[in-house]
Amino acid sequence: MQFQNPGEDRHSAGLRACLTRGVLYTRADIESANANAHFSEDEFLEYGRDRTRVTAPDFSVLVFPETTDEVAALIRYCYEQRLAVTASGGRTGLSGGAVAAHGEVVLSLSRMNRLIDFDPYLPALHVEAGMITAVAQEHAREHGCQFPLDLAASGSSQVGGNIATNAGGTRMISVGGLRDYVTGLTVVTGTGEILTFPGHILKNNSGFDLRSLFIGSEGCLGIITEAVIRLPPAPRTEATALFAVPDLAAALRLLTIVRSGGVRPLTFEYFDAASLQIVRQHLNLRAPFAAADYPGYVIMSWDESDQSMDAALEIFSSDAVASLALDVRVAGNSSQAAELWKFREGISESIALEARAVHKHDVSVPAAAMSEFVAEATKFLTAGFAGVRMLVFGHLGDGNLHLNFIPDDSEAGGADSGLESFRESLPALDAELFSRIARAGGSISAEHGIGLLKKKYLHYSRSQAEIQLMRGIKAVLDPGGILNPGKVLPAANE
Amino acid sequence: MQFQNPGEDRHSAGLRACLTRGVLYTRADIESANANAHFSEDEFLEYGRDRTRVTAPDFSVLVFPETTDEVAALIRYCYEQRLAVTASGGRTGLSGGAVAAHGEVVLSLSRMNRLIDFDPYLPALHVEAGMITAVAQEHAREHGCQFPLDLAASGSSQVGGNIATNAGGTRMISVGGLRDYVTGLTVVTGTGEILTFPGHILKNNSGFDLRSLFIGSEGCLGIITEAVIRLPPAPRTEATALFAVPDLAAALRLLTIVRSGGVRPLTFEYFDAASLQIVRQHLNLRAPFAAADYPGYVIMSWDESDQSMDAALEIFSSDAVASLALDVRVAGNSSQAAELWKFREGISESIALEARAVHKHDVSVPAAAMSEFVAEATKFLTAGFAGVRMLVFGHLGDGNLHLNFIPDDSEAGGADSGLESFRESLPALDAELFSRIARAGGSISAEHGIGLLKKKYLHYSRSQAEIQLMRGIKAVLDPGGILNPGKVLPAANE
Repeated sequence: MQFQNPGEDRHSAGLRACLTRGVLYTRADIESANANAHFSEDEFLEYGRDRTRVTAPDFSVLVFPETTDEVAALIRYCYEQRLAVTASGGRTGLSGGAVAAHGEVVLSLSRMNRLIDFDPYLPALHVEAGMITAVAQEHAREHGCQFPLDLAASGSSQVGGNIATNAGGTRMISVGGLRDYVTGLTVVTGTGEILTFPGHILKNNSGFDLRSLFIGSEGCLGIITEAVIRLPPAPRTEATALFAVPDLAAALRLLTIVRSGGVRPLTFEYFDAASLQIVRQHLNLRAPFAAADYPGYVIMSWDESDQSMDAALEIFSSDAVASLALDVRVAGNSSQAAELWKFREGISESIALEARAVHKHDVSVPAAAMSEFVAEATKFLTAGFAGVRMLVFGHLGDGNLHLNFIPDDSEAGGADSGLESFRESLPALDAELFSRIARAGGSISAEHGIGLLKKKYLHYSRSQAEIQLMRGIKAVLDPGGILNPGKVLPAANE
Repeated sequence: MQFQNPGEDRHSAGLRACLTRGVLYTRADIESANANAHFSEDEFLEYGRDRTRVTAPDFSVLVFPETTDEVAALIRYCYEQRLAVTASGGRTGLSGGAVAAHGEVVLSLSRMNRLIDFDPYLPALHVEAGMITAVAQEHAREHGCQFPLDLAASGSSQVGGNIATNAGGTRMISVGGLRDYVTGLTVVTGTGEILTFPGHILKNNSGFDLRSLFIGSEGCLGIITEAVIRLPPAPRTEATALFAVPDLAAALRLLTIVRSGGVRPLTFEYFDAASLQIVRQHLNLRAPFAAADYPGYVIMSWDESDQSMDAALEIFSSDAVASLALDVRVAGNSSQAAELWKFREGISESIALEARAVHKHDVSVPAAAMSEFVAEATKFLTAGFAGVRMLVFGHLGDGNLHLNFIPDDSEAGGADSGLESFRESLPALDAELFSRIARAGGSISAEHGIGLLKKKYLHYSRSQAEIQLMRGIKAVLDPGGILNPGKVLPAANE
């Protein structure tokens, strides 16, 4: 589909007429500095870019509506004129879902960041979509609750973007997914229709659940402008333990054993020896266990008022745990816990800064199949991908693995030639990996979504029938095909 | 739309050819008793009836498939021949969603009732759709978990039907809704396409969430044949308290106060004095509080290992609670708790058996608006509906009220004339009620769904735009319009 580029002369007046409080900037304004432009061209373009740097942004109109009615008026205009629109949140995505590279009208929710109200009964926050996640977390804490999402990008991601991407994080095992907490939504469809799904009630069985469709739809089915989000109670005193394990299978059995002992983990994270090595190298940390290096590690936290430290220590020293865990370290206080968490939380950044290149996958594999999957992956890497090393870590309790592939610097050959062969091997690696994930009943994208980068792999996780149904549903909600075109769904010829 | 009645000659052979293990009965078989028919005509017809008795079943073909492939083959045949199909589960619905009154092929899931597997990691049950809810609960208990749904009909409702109606219950406040626990589904669409949404993983952001669409779709978008359901941990020791309150507002404030004291209610149920009166009359119970009769009551349970009895008693005797609750009784053991629960659990049956007629609504109203809503309803009943009494009870913590309207026997005039004027007044009463619920941001159907009975009220809870989108989505998933036609969505001329 070819969209008209909304040049400033052609459409900026029509779009501006949709606004009473919001503002609109054109790239020409910025370039000529003749408007009240507070930012540079690069800052302008930033609104059409996410954390991926694969596709350069290219667009001419950036609009900051302030109300749902303004969003609806803008979308109606775009629908009539067949202008493509990309919603722009905190732009912390990792799949290119918020990239505007084909002259889309970029619709930033940043000025719609108000707290609408707090419902003490559910309890729930009613917020505008542009509220920064960390701000929502702060509001939740003020009311003795937790926001049901915490992730590395909380300081800049927005609530609407969290919902549009169904963002995950480390607490899924205990509180469930964001999807389960979004009780209400206000959404503007691709025809500019405002849909309001009431959120101050928990039960509502009145017809098909359209609301859920928008959660995780990556801006392709509607623009989320408001949300009501139920808040789980805040965990009280959090306790943390680090376990050393011989392998992934032991880590998984450990989960079932501590659970049957009565511990309800708030987090249950795994990382392998290679991940630990790179964190220690980057952050200059001592080994967590002085006695030895181990093949794998689990960091677990739990609510101490739910299971006291004494009761937990009794479980950890039981024969059942001792038969699985090679070693265990329990944090005596919160600063010790923070020290232990560094090993897990430092991994992504350490890889980004220490490895010459990194190829990342964020996949789900059923726990029952996970150990065999990782063993097989290790085997086919050794056999066919000599220049590639795999680092495994992730939210084990959710079946969510982060697989990071880096060039093996120990391989023969110059650094550059290694890098080139590394890159050339990736498509074959991905195909091997994804077909095994599909067979195991997993998902090629656990948290990060599909966006632009994973479109070509979608068929591993979704059947052709499903992709066809998704196209049909998009046509119902966005009959002009103007909402974030080219994202998520591969074109028929792709 | 007019559907052809699949008379035994015309289509039973074609439908039988779709089966290798399952069986098919025609009404003619039953009538002539010439087949291996194990049941009477009435038992046959029972498969096309739910707990409503408003519309009489009328159909000729009843089929019991045993596999998803058989369901798919049957639906493909029905799609080609444009035969309407009604899925038949435990038939405990209260809105006529499973009624087959226009010659639909009735597809019973009863023989697809196997446990496929238990996943100890999530943990989760993978079951066929026809498993009885109580059986699923038993499997969950065996693994130290609870099934995330308990309702009065657990002994005969089926898991697939629970999901197709997004069934509620009393535990929503603590464990959330069934929707939040259905991680995986196998569904057959209206063209006979099998969709499999993997359920042994918690995170899966790979394209639009089609799975959620089927939850609560009342058999109109697909036939659910298998489900993976995540299991929350079993509550440990359950403690129960009954509070007397001056009004609904006090009951709601009580919820926020016990919560801020640290109690996390497992259930928080309300009933008014009129509800108590009818239960006491029917079950011949003594008043819960010897000292006095009170305007309203709250029964609350919590996990005692989460908040000990001593700590809870301290909260209950605090000034904050004392300023709201007129009286409190704490169950000292489980049999005392069972005694207290009788007051709440006996209400529906007592009304059914004691009142000469009952008109029931199951609505959601945001807690913040609930007190005013009930006061207004009381006011307009007094002003305009002298022959009608309202009983209020429900799952207060979820914003879910059961409003039961019965003839006021104290009114002048003979019993029969009272009953007639009672019935005549109901349409005006419903209109008053539903328009106020809509304005308050509530739902006209919290738990029971829309089915046949509430179609004409759907517009109070859903905008015309939403109803139009629902029609569009149905056309995508069920292009022949064969799945449970006439349910949920009003026809354009209705």
